[in-house]
Amino acid sequence: MTKKMQKPQTLKGFRDFLPEEKRKRDFIIQRIKQVFELFGFEPLETPTLEYAGLLLGKYGDEADKLVYTFTDRGKRQIGLRFDQTVPTARILAQYQNQLPKYFRRYQIQNVFRADKPQKGRFREFTQCDIDIFGSSSPLADAEIVSCTYWAFKNIGFKQVKIKINDRQILFETLKPFTNKTVDVFSLIQSIDKLNKIGAEAVISELENKGLNKNDAQKVLKEIGQAKTSPSLKSIIEAAVGLGVAKTDIQFSPSLARGLDYYTDMIFEVVLPEYTAGSCGGGGRYDKLIAQLGGVDIPAVGIAFGFDRMVEAADQLGLIPEQKSGAQVLVTVFSPEYLTQSLQLASRLRQAGVKTELYPDTNVRLDKQFKYANKKGIPRVAIVGPEEIRANIIAVKNMKTGEQETISLEKTIEKLITNG
Amino acid sequence: MTKKMQKPQTLKGFRDFLPEEKRKRDFIIQRIKQVFELFGFEPLETPTLEYAGLLLGKYGDEADKLVYTFTDRGKRQIGLRFDQTVPTARILAQYQNQLPKYFRRYQIQNVFRADKPQKGRFREFTQCDIDIFGSSSPLADAEIVSCTYWAFKNIGFKQVKIKINDRQILFETLKPFTNKTVDVFSLIQSIDKLNKIGAEAVISELENKGLNKNDAQKVLKEIGQAKTSPSLKSIIEAAVGLGVAKTDIQFSPSLARGLDYYTDMIFEVVLPEYTAGSCGGGGRYDKLIAQLGGVDIPAVGIAFGFDRMVEAADQLGLIPEQKSGAQVLVTVFSPEYLTQSLQLASRLRQAGVKTELYPDTNVRLDKQFKYANKKGIPRVAIVGPEEIRANIIAVKNMKTGEQETISLEKTIEKLITNG
Repeated sequence: MTKKMQKPQTLKGFRDFLPEEKRKRDFIIQRIKQVFELFGFEPLETPTLEYAGLLLGKYGDEADKLVYTFTDRGKRQIGLRFDQTVPTARILAQYQNQLPKYFRRYQIQNVFRADKPQKGRFREFTQCDIDIFGSSSPLADAEIVSCTYWAFKNIGFKQVKIKINDRQILFETLKPFTNKTVDVFSLIQSIDKLNKIGAEAVISELENKGLNKNDAQKVLKEIGQAKTSPSLKSIIEAAVGLGVAKTDIQFSPSLARGLDYYTDMIFEVVLPEYTAGSCGGGGRYDKLIAQLGGVDIPAVGIAFGFDRMVEAADQLGLIPEQKSGAQVLVTVFSPEYLTQSLQLASRLRQAGVKTELYPDTNVRLDKQFKYANKKGIPRVAIVGPEEIRANIIAVKNMKTGEQETISLEKTIEKLITNG
Repeated sequence: MTKKMQKPQTLKGFRDFLPEEKRKRDFIIQRIKQVFELFGFEPLETPTLEYAGLLLGKYGDEADKLVYTFTDRGKRQIGLRFDQTVPTARILAQYQNQLPKYFRRYQIQNVFRADKPQKGRFREFTQCDIDIFGSSSPLADAEIVSCTYWAFKNIGFKQVKIKINDRQILFETLKPFTNKTVDVFSLIQSIDKLNKIGAEAVISELENKGLNKNDAQKVLKEIGQAKTSPSLKSIIEAAVGLGVAKTDIQFSPSLARGLDYYTDMIFEVVLPEYTAGSCGGGGRYDKLIAQLGGVDIPAVGIAFGFDRMVEAADQLGLIPEQKSGAQVLVTVFSPEYLTQSLQLASRLRQAGVKTELYPDTNVRLDKQFKYANKKGIPRVAIVGPEEIRANIIAVKNMKTGEQETISLEKTIEKLITNG
């Protein structure tokens, strides 16, 4: 109990979220959860620790190195949650008799990667997924796409664009260009970089992979001219039926997505007002769950880029500014008038006003004002002898300095509406 | 990617929360967070992983064995969050210039203990704390006590009782009974068991500790007759001023609390309708933060027994029964009438109704009904040719079997209110 801390610090790649930042994150979570639930998605939580055997060998050799593993005191090999798909594959296998035929779940939990920390890349970060398991109908795809769209809309983003493609179209278009050294996934991975590095760089990458210049150019041309598929058409139509504006969803034949496991529809969210990168993407992956867990079940979903969503919403001013948790500080005039301050705080809280009571009875009012100011509490309320005599409350706006003396009812009204 | 799972299972002492259970937990969190924020408490989040050096040597030798530690690939000694107090002590030291003079924070995160799992004891569980740092005024104590009280009230518990005492009273009463082998904390730990094991067992424990029978009996008698302190009186008065019913807060001279670090006020929540144990307790600990982190700051707070709160609320029927995430299943009559189903789902969602769309266009209605029934979705909505002609919707109550054909507006009204 007496050991002193050395220098107080977090591990590299890990973050503290102080109240102002934490409130922003909670705001985004609340907004998207609301939409997830309107779409009938249900919450799921899995443990932070799993048998290492569950996690290793699932993400590829390179990724295996990034899984946090250790041996516990019972000599078990333990791993920290690396993503939410593998634990969900376990859930689907373990509870298959309990789960509904169509399982639509959302999951918002932290994952851990022993990766090199850099700007925007952390060792612990929040993943946010929605998926529908059990349906191979285009309707499930459309539900995912429109739920995604509305989640962004509900945060307040004015412009939300969905780029959508079908891996089957890519497979068909790319097949003639594969050879012994370049398979279709290798081609897809190059094409995926089109937006980032441009056509010329992709062509030279394809040449490096073993295509001749002519073919490399032809790949891009044919991709660009690819026609939509009947399945993709149904998905887009249904998504529009579910409220996605026609102009906000666009067939994008060169959209490739990096991950190998997508089998059919793939899509990405683009926020034209925010250019630091995609805020989410997903698609259909009908074979992955069987590969991971031994239950053969079709699946479609999206992983939201949570940190980027918070950053984008914050930059665009969509998160209500709230420097402090309290909307008002109830001051304590003096020990003599404490009862009235207590009563006022209690009344305000019962009316739904977030209220901090100054936790000291012997501090001058101006110091209490200073405290509110420094903490960013937008208003202070005073009940001193004069106010008590007149049965009113003095409410001071800390930004404008304006002070009014009004009734309790008016005070509540003011605080509720002006946040 | 192709490695198969062995038997799908969680580690012993770890839990999956499937939707029905997760919703219950989320309900409790939402209810108590609401009250925390009304009292001006602000959210805080710290990383799951910390330097092991931060965690070890803080909780005592026995507890040190229960801290999950390991060496990461960078040869750092890492530990998993063991409680929320030690990381918060780090926060108070690390950000002391950024934090307000009075820092009131709530924190709801999972902690990890390599303890023997048993009924009600898990290796990963949710801790939920509120604390006020920086004030030694009885007002801060009263804020904690009344916030606690209202948090339970807001869940719906009809009877919430607060037992409250002052360690200073205990120290004074017990001092004459200490000797070389029995210090005041040892006496406190025995007295703490009074409710659990009864007076006789406590007396014999005290005798085993080296008190003679006469003194052992006298200890209990004097504890029982102890008078309240001026400080405790102010706290109780202020708590009543802040809305705690007078009859719900009681000076309990034999309340001791097990932990050594409490210095003054201590309290416990008792729910008379739930007898499986205390659902939370806390007090003032003015020296602990300095001991943990080198910042000398007074503190008062409570740790809620989250799992027990969920269990108690569930047993008493306070958690709205919600077997399914969706309030209604919008069925798909046939591919021909899909547009109308999409539109209906979209309208319902926009009106705030949690809506699942049946994700298949080629399934008979009775099968869709069966699906809703099995999943516990309380209502299904049908738009077939007849309904479309009459511009109405058929809504079937899955519990009663009753079916009505009503307008969209009426449907929304029904679903919103009977949700």
